[in-house]
Amino acid sequence: MSPANLSDRLAQQRKLISTAYDPQLVRDAGQRLIASLVTHLQTVQAGQGQVLNWQPPTENIALATERLQQADRAPELNADQLTARFTELIEQTLQHGQNLHHPHYVGHQVPASLPLAGLFDAVTAITNQVMAIYEMGPWATAVERAMVHELGAAIGFTPGKFSGLVTSGGSLANLTALLTARNVTLGDSWKTGLAHSQLPPVLVTHAEAHYCVTRAAGVLGIGTDQIVRVPLDRQRRMEPAALDRILIELRQRNVPIVAVSAAACATPSGAFDPLVEIAQICRQHQVWLHVDAAHGGAACLSPQHQHLVAGLELADSVVCDAHKMLFIPALCAFVFYRQHEHRYAAFEQVAPYLFDPSVPGMAEFDNGITNVECTKRAAAMGLWGVWSLFGRQLFAALVDVTLDLAQQFYRLLVEQNDFQPLCQPPCNIVVFRYLPPTLRDRSPAEIDAFQLRLRRAVIEAGDFYLVQTSLDGRSYLRTTIMNPLTTAAHLRQLLDCLREYGQKLLP
Amino acid sequence: MSPANLSDRLAQQRKLISTAYDPQLVRDAGQRLIASLVTHLQTVQAGQGQVLNWQPPTENIALATERLQQADRAPELNADQLTARFTELIEQTLQHGQNLHHPHYVGHQVPASLPLAGLFDAVTAITNQVMAIYEMGPWATAVERAMVHELGAAIGFTPGKFSGLVTSGGSLANLTALLTARNVTLGDSWKTGLAHSQLPPVLVTHAEAHYCVTRAAGVLGIGTDQIVRVPLDRQRRMEPAALDRILIELRQRNVPIVAVSAAACATPSGAFDPLVEIAQICRQHQVWLHVDAAHGGAACLSPQHQHLVAGLELADSVVCDAHKMLFIPALCAFVFYRQHEHRYAAFEQVAPYLFDPSVPGMAEFDNGITNVECTKRAAAMGLWGVWSLFGRQLFAALVDVTLDLAQQFYRLLVEQNDFQPLCQPPCNIVVFRYLPPTLRDRSPAEIDAFQLRLRRAVIEAGDFYLVQTSLDGRSYLRTTIMNPLTTAAHLRQLLDCLREYGQKLLP
Repeated sequence: MSPANLSDRLAQQRKLISTAYDPQLVRDAGQRLIASLVTHLQTVQAGQGQVLNWQPPTENIALATERLQQADRAPELNADQLTARFTELIEQTLQHGQNLHHPHYVGHQVPASLPLAGLFDAVTAITNQVMAIYEMGPWATAVERAMVHELGAAIGFTPGKFSGLVTSGGSLANLTALLTARNVTLGDSWKTGLAHSQLPPVLVTHAEAHYCVTRAAGVLGIGTDQIVRVPLDRQRRMEPAALDRILIELRQRNVPIVAVSAAACATPSGAFDPLVEIAQICRQHQVWLHVDAAHGGAACLSPQHQHLVAGLELADSVVCDAHKMLFIPALCAFVFYRQHEHRYAAFEQVAPYLFDPSVPGMAEFDNGITNVECTKRAAAMGLWGVWSLFGRQLFAALVDVTLDLAQQFYRLLVEQNDFQPLCQPPCNIVVFRYLPPTLRDRSPAEIDAFQLRLRRAVIEAGDFYLVQTSLDGRSYLRTTIMNPLTTAAHLRQLLDCLREYGQKLLP
Repeated sequence: MSPANLSDRLAQQRKLISTAYDPQLVRDAGQRLIASLVTHLQTVQAGQGQVLNWQPPTENIALATERLQQADRAPELNADQLTARFTELIEQTLQHGQNLHHPHYVGHQVPASLPLAGLFDAVTAITNQVMAIYEMGPWATAVERAMVHELGAAIGFTPGKFSGLVTSGGSLANLTALLTARNVTLGDSWKTGLAHSQLPPVLVTHAEAHYCVTRAAGVLGIGTDQIVRVPLDRQRRMEPAALDRILIELRQRNVPIVAVSAAACATPSGAFDPLVEIAQICRQHQVWLHVDAAHGGAACLSPQHQHLVAGLELADSVVCDAHKMLFIPALCAFVFYRQHEHRYAAFEQVAPYLFDPSVPGMAEFDNGITNVECTKRAAAMGLWGVWSLFGRQLFAALVDVTLDLAQQFYRLLVEQNDFQPLCQPPCNIVVFRYLPPTLRDRSPAEIDAFQLRLRRAVIEAGDFYLVQTSLDGRSYLRTTIMNPLTTAAHLRQLLDCLREYGQKLLP
């Protein structure tokens, strides 16, 4: 290309860029966005329309791809056309999603998030406030630190003695904490690797730990075969006596123990481990105690329910997801270390373009040193914003109301002769089966397959959204009350809905 | 608490929740938000005010904490008060941040992001569209897949043969790809761990690889001592002949090689490795080639600059961050595998509450199986949305305009007698020093310390935002043209500004 042509092309490109960054376009698009979102929330929260807008993956992918290719083919658009196309894209997105704000959403542990938290996220997304080093996100860093201090204190850690960080999700949070445990426990494993280990180390876990905990053993070079699962009691909680026996036996054989990973609560069942006893046993054997409190950690903010997580403050590391029971949009996961000095144990690095050696004191506030992420979202902004509006009472309310409704749902299930709850729910996770008389004399395999088929029919129709689980090899229906706008009336409708589809599907 | 009191409290809590979820409040707050953001963008893009609103960390943390405590103390608010408080919080956030949209922002590789991309992020944040399994985020999944297909094809991978995913940041993306390489290369390391390795494996990297690449060796149990750094040529690119010698020697000693990790481009210098030659050498030795193209991968969308990443399509795994040179807000990082079958090699897990065994074909669309994240943000929505508005030409324009300006800046630096560029910039990363005559006869240590002191003064004053780096033990000023609204005139002002502060600070 000749210099003149190049110069012309660059001028045209600058014009296109100037259109894309035009604040007036942002205003027009933003106003349409708010209008569309508010209408959508009104409709969905009122329980109108479907929960899940089911369409097979290949069809949705074809639609999304067509949009990209259409834009590649299209000539340049003026501002009005851009705003109109923007509105179409927003509407398409809203019409093809999963509606967590629908009161019939009782599925995975992903909340009908506080909409205002999403507005705070919008500020950081549009202005791209990030971290890694303090100077790149001074307010993002401050907000994260303020939240770490408040939430850590609510867990019961000693102010000034603990530290914490926010990362992208509970899986990454558990990985980070267990990496810290590995580095502290195995000494020089960060530098020398695990191939130099004398004896292969083990990770001791709750028998029904979330897959990210067992995965961490695979990622960190420990090996998933090196996981020792502690047996559960009848309420599916880790059994302290069994843990004690396991640790005694491992110590006798000099097997290095990376950590004990307990659950508050376990994902499939909602069971809370007896943390006070477990912590005492871990201290006796000088073993790192990690608690995956991704779901249940929020109970520390409820005077009524904080007893569920008693002992959390005795753990060496704790994970708590704000994008679960604090009702914040994904992702905002906290890692806490009871001892401040462990905050730098996960990672080591030199990055001279990043960390300014002329102000060494600033490293304390440079998040990149403690996190997997280098560039990192201002993930705590939504939580900080909503807390700053309503105070901690809102989070207590969300925990109390959803846990109360789970108890109501359990009592409702007990009253039915064609439903069978697994057990009284320890929190807002309720596991049960639809078991009408005609199904009872079928084989276990048929009963199990029927639960899955029933769920599939209900969710694809979009009437309700619930999930399945498998416990001791048997299949169950599983609900989590993750929408505080769901009521007992909605749950009665759920049972009617399951009956209706069930009768049609019965073998 | 008595049942009656409990019931009263729950009723009050439900009322508070109903206020927090009120669509009318979302409308009022959303309108204020858009107004504040548009005014902010107008001001900042016009170059008014400071780039970085510098305040020491402890002061910002105290302000952020005060907001939380104030809300804890405050009585319940009505809708008008909430909207007013919301607006205050937004304004406070905007006033204490880093203004990447200011044309004087020429710092880290974090872009002045496309504001409309942030609006798309707002939709998914407010409606909390997530992934892990397809049914939780059908549209989010479709959008991610569509982007993977388009971007992978643009890199040059064969449609239908490659696969890809989006994850939370370039560091996590590099970790995921290198985990896949480790699992494929070392056979059973996922299950048995690395303690069973016969010979400790190594990771071969660009000598100035991003810290997340070297960290990956620490995280994955390989060990940071097990990194073999390939020497660089004078343009700071990996030297193919040196790589060949290293691989021959390692193979002779039967040392397991996890991967060769090349850079496109290297973070400190912007140098692009000669990928075609490197790929050929890796194939000869049957070694996994990973390319960290977090920054430079976007060049594949520019007909003018795609030569920079020629050979990227020969790599076994590639990382490309949309939140760098595709100008999308953090975080949106792509991992590509040239061979589709490697997509499941990073992780293995059983999670019966998550994956529905009754529809096994759906697993292909369940992102949790290929990602560290379980619950995952709809991170590709902003990229999909902006691409669907403007087409790929916008991304070519962003690459071309910023790379062109870097060349202009280089020529400007060459013309000055008191500035010294390190080398002609291979992309939009420009490294240089301020070196007025009076400084030239000082010791190297004094010259280096002066660069850092100068930068500190400029960024804390908020006049410009640029960064520092260290190459071969010497300190430099480092700029990246990450704002397409920056012009040559702004860069002339940067030199004047550095001179002005420099003269004041000269020893």
